[in-house]
Amino acid sequence: MRVMIDICYDGSKFEGFASQPHGRTVADTLAIVLEKIYKQPVSIFGSSRTDSKVSAKTQYIVFDPPFTIEPDNIVRAINAIIDKAIYCKSAQLVPDRYMPRHDVEYKTYKYTITREYRPMYRHLEYFIRHQLNVEAMQTAANYLVGTHDFSSFCSANTDVTDKVRTIFDLSVEQDDNQVVLTISGDGFLYNMVRIIAGTLIVFGLEKENPDLMQEILASKDRAAAYSTAPAHGLMLEYIKLKGSHE
Amino acid sequence: MRVMIDICYDGSKFEGFASQPHGRTVADTLAIVLEKIYKQPVSIFGSSRTDSKVSAKTQYIVFDPPFTIEPDNIVRAINAIIDKAIYCKSAQLVPDRYMPRHDVEYKTYKYTITREYRPMYRHLEYFIRHQLNVEAMQTAANYLVGTHDFSSFCSANTDVTDKVRTIFDLSVEQDDNQVVLTISGDGFLYNMVRIIAGTLIVFGLEKENPDLMQEILASKDRAAAYSTAPAHGLMLEYIKLKGSHE
Repeated sequence: MRVMIDICYDGSKFEGFASQPHGRTVADTLAIVLEKIYKQPVSIFGSSRTDSKVSAKTQYIVFDPPFTIEPDNIVRAINAIIDKAIYCKSAQLVPDRYMPRHDVEYKTYKYTITREYRPMYRHLEYFIRHQLNVEAMQTAANYLVGTHDFSSFCSANTDVTDKVRTIFDLSVEQDDNQVVLTISGDGFLYNMVRIIAGTLIVFGLEKENPDLMQEILASKDRAAAYSTAPAHGLMLEYIKLKGSHE
Repeated sequence: MRVMIDICYDGSKFEGFASQPHGRTVADTLAIVLEKIYKQPVSIFGSSRTDSKVSAKTQYIVFDPPFTIEPDNIVRAINAIIDKAIYCKSAQLVPDRYMPRHDVEYKTYKYTITREYRPMYRHLEYFIRHQLNVEAMQTAANYLVGTHDFSSFCSANTDVTDKVRTIFDLSVEQDDNQVVLTISGDGFLYNMVRIIAGTLIVFGLEKENPDLMQEILASKDRAAAYSTAPAHGLMLEYIKLKGSHE
């Protein structure tokens, strides 16, 4: 029997999603809770990794419970004892061996930049005092939509060799004092969204002509793109599963 | 010379605005920063008190600096060293002895209730799983608009004797999974907005007929109203000064 839960979390309280030997992670926090509920260790598998300080509105996680608890009661049991920075939204039964990581149709991330520093939202947006040219950012962003080798937007710190990904949509929108990048794709390389955000900001500041984005992409060289934008502006907004478990 | 600054803050990090012997407050944190900037203690006077865990988008504070620093440089100096949970938005010179507390035309508070627990916003909204009847809440809320004795909505823990206040506007609006109360008035008694919110929630849950609000108000008895809603749903949204210093 395999159970899939959907959780959201305040990333500012964690050193990322994936389990690691040092620092408090979402996966480790959840594993401890499941061990308390099931009275024995339970292995968990997530649909997506998020970096340290990155929040998520959705994250699918599967595990094989050692005994049956009704899905609604699993949700209640988790929420009753887990840290307030994590919340379990739902639970359902899925086929044995189902792995949400291998069933992602697309993921959507948002990156929020604010011109007005707002202390109550400081963990959710990156503060840049300057007005950004949203039109220039959108012009540059359009070059990235489609299927490309995104080597220029991948942190060197990765084992992944196939760097071809498809971006379905990348919009840059101004909403009051905030500029929000919304990016949907079939998968993202290590730090890809944050490097794209950092590079789009350079165009937003009008330091370069947005058509340069074409060359940056074509170079397949991380050094051609600009710096990685900080983690706290990033939100894993949505994960669309193909639903092949249904 | 008197300077007035406008600050905002993440109340979840503080035991309220006003200075107190125990616990970290916004006023004490700011006073320490001003002492560092001016190399001597500086007395500060705020426009409004906020309870422990209540955030503010605006809070006017005056002080008499021992020597002249340009307003823009005061803003920079404060923001360079103050805790990230507080932000100084502006500074200006005001007449000697000007007290923003005595010059408030109206204040606006928001109280946010959410039906969907969102860990990243948990310090800014009160989670109630049930659907609230917004129409019933608005019907009850309408009885409070105007000039009334608000003794029923004042914590017993107060020295204030005149409990007559004027509410200019009180709206209850649904926005997706959130219900937001917005209340503007010439002044508010101790815990008044939170007791109003807690009472409106009872009507939203359809536990009582909204017309009961009329009797609760008329009774001038705190025991007639319902429980005080938690602090973290409350935000001091806006303070309109009469501008008599201009």
